[in-house]
Amino acid sequence: VKKLLGVDVGGTNVRAAVVGEEGKLLAVAKRRLADRGPDAVVAAVVQAVDEVEKSGGRGSACGVGFAGQLDGESGLVRVAPNLGWRDVPLGELLQQRLARPVSVVNDLSAAAWGEHRAGASKGVNDAFTVFVGSGVGSAIIANGSLVHGARGVAGEFGHVKVVPGGRLCGCGEQGCLEAYAGGHNLTALMEEAIAAKRSPGLEALTQGTAPTPVHLEEAAAAGDSAAVEIFDRAVEFLGVSLGNQITVLNPGVVVLGGGVLAHAPGLRERVKARALEICSRTSRAAVTIRDAALGDDSGLIGAALLSMPA
Amino acid sequence: VKKLLGVDVGGTNVRAAVVGEEGKLLAVAKRRLADRGPDAVVAAVVQAVDEVEKSGGRGSACGVGFAGQLDGESGLVRVAPNLGWRDVPLGELLQQRLARPVSVVNDLSAAAWGEHRAGASKGVNDAFTVFVGSGVGSAIIANGSLVHGARGVAGEFGHVKVVPGGRLCGCGEQGCLEAYAGGHNLTALMEEAIAAKRSPGLEALTQGTAPTPVHLEEAAAAGDSAAVEIFDRAVEFLGVSLGNQITVLNPGVVVLGGGVLAHAPGLRERVKARALEICSRTSRAAVTIRDAALGDDSGLIGAALLSMPA
Repeated sequence: VKKLLGVDVGGTNVRAAVVGEEGKLLAVAKRRLADRGPDAVVAAVVQAVDEVEKSGGRGSACGVGFAGQLDGESGLVRVAPNLGWRDVPLGELLQQRLARPVSVVNDLSAAAWGEHRAGASKGVNDAFTVFVGSGVGSAIIANGSLVHGARGVAGEFGHVKVVPGGRLCGCGEQGCLEAYAGGHNLTALMEEAIAAKRSPGLEALTQGTAPTPVHLEEAAAAGDSAAVEIFDRAVEFLGVSLGNQITVLNPGVVVLGGGVLAHAPGLRERVKARALEICSRTSRAAVTIRDAALGDDSGLIGAALLSMPA
Repeated sequence: VKKLLGVDVGGTNVRAAVVGEEGKLLAVAKRRLADRGPDAVVAAVVQAVDEVEKSGGRGSACGVGFAGQLDGESGLVRVAPNLGWRDVPLGELLQQRLARPVSVVNDLSAAAWGEHRAGASKGVNDAFTVFVGSGVGSAIIANGSLVHGARGVAGEFGHVKVVPGGRLCGCGEQGCLEAYAGGHNLTALMEEAIAAKRSPGLEALTQGTAPTPVHLEEAAAAGDSAAVEIFDRAVEFLGVSLGNQITVLNPGVVVLGGGVLAHAPGLRERVKARALEICSRTSRAAVTIRDAALGDDSGLIGAALLSMPA
């Protein structure tokens, strides 16, 4: 059976996997990043690949899922805020060291493709996958293929404007969905409420530690008014934005993933219900909203499968 | 050169055209519909086809653009409110009479495909086409193909919710974009303002005739406060919704068509400007917003080209 390599480059670790061509994970290895420069990252990937191939066997091509802005399919990383990179030819560097074809893809596209080939949207030609983690992103699968868009940035669901002129987002613009519903922003909103003495509930729960979506859900359920406000607004903006994308894209399956949705099931269920209220009647009849099935492995599996020559 | 037939079934006329395989319109014929029953429509199409083929030559296959809800690619019309149809096997009926392959597609998909193959988005693999006429609709082209969605209803842009719980839409739900920006609704909103004596400007301009988008634009430009309110709201909802779709789809070209946008250039330019303000920075860098180039012919051309066997 044909084997492929999948690589996931995060902010603190790299992971490598040997994946069967049907999407089965055969072996995984992880390396902690000593530093975040391109040389250190490439070295860590090569070590992880060497290790994983000892048990899993050789992969004929390598796909890398990467969080950052990429230049089409050239493997050039334009900007990667997590790693502080700018214009790094990651694909080329890895191809030299690994001596096989290397493709670099957006990490969310890789994860959505993994879910499509081996997870929650398997067998579904039209799927919309939304990740709510520290940020908010998505990937579109239409007619059985990933939609990249004209410059490879399709799926910027976190940057739809939900309050034109509203809260400043990490992207530098105002009023993005992510500014109200991404994990980093939820934490910031909770910290602001605690600092302003508006949230006795969150203050008691967190006791000086960084507030998480789990705290938010617990404080909102207990009726803390600041927590309820932050929670309800995140539900409304995520639910309406998702419902409207269901109307436009008419997916057979919506997949919900990412740390915030995984750890805050109350939030997740409210978002699902709201999205189904908001979407059009005809699109509602076609869609099923499912939780992501592969967790952190979706990106490894999807990156590997995307490296397969067409 | 290979020739194809394109047919457009409207509420009062049918048109048929012979189209070259590169999208050139070679001949057109029109028949007025005596009545709107399936038999009368089929007879009118057959007559128009007979006429057009005398001058244009024989088309090897026939594509029909149809305003209504279709059942996948079977040619079955589920519901067509314009004609009062329900469950009419239009494709089958025409195939028997025309003795060649017949495909029936959504009229907006046909028009968008015509613009893609021979008009404003020619040569662009990722395009989003929005039509604002009596209703509001859209079609998505991704990776060079039309996106149909899981049940063939992708592109229901007019039914994204812009005011959850808001104004009743013709679709039976509340707060849809179309309820604030479609031609029928703009007319209704203006009539309501005139009846309530809130719009001396529109009253003077229309003098008892049905108000049109041209009146709206003129009255708003003259400062009539009810007209300004209706106009500004339509601009804001269209602009924000379009901008957000640009963010998610990352199209290389957006094509704007339909009667309202064609006849109200002031509205159209304001919508363009607002959409470009709202969309994300990266998607903005990739997109050009263009006016539809083929007018009423886009649907004939697109339907014909979509009938071509793959």
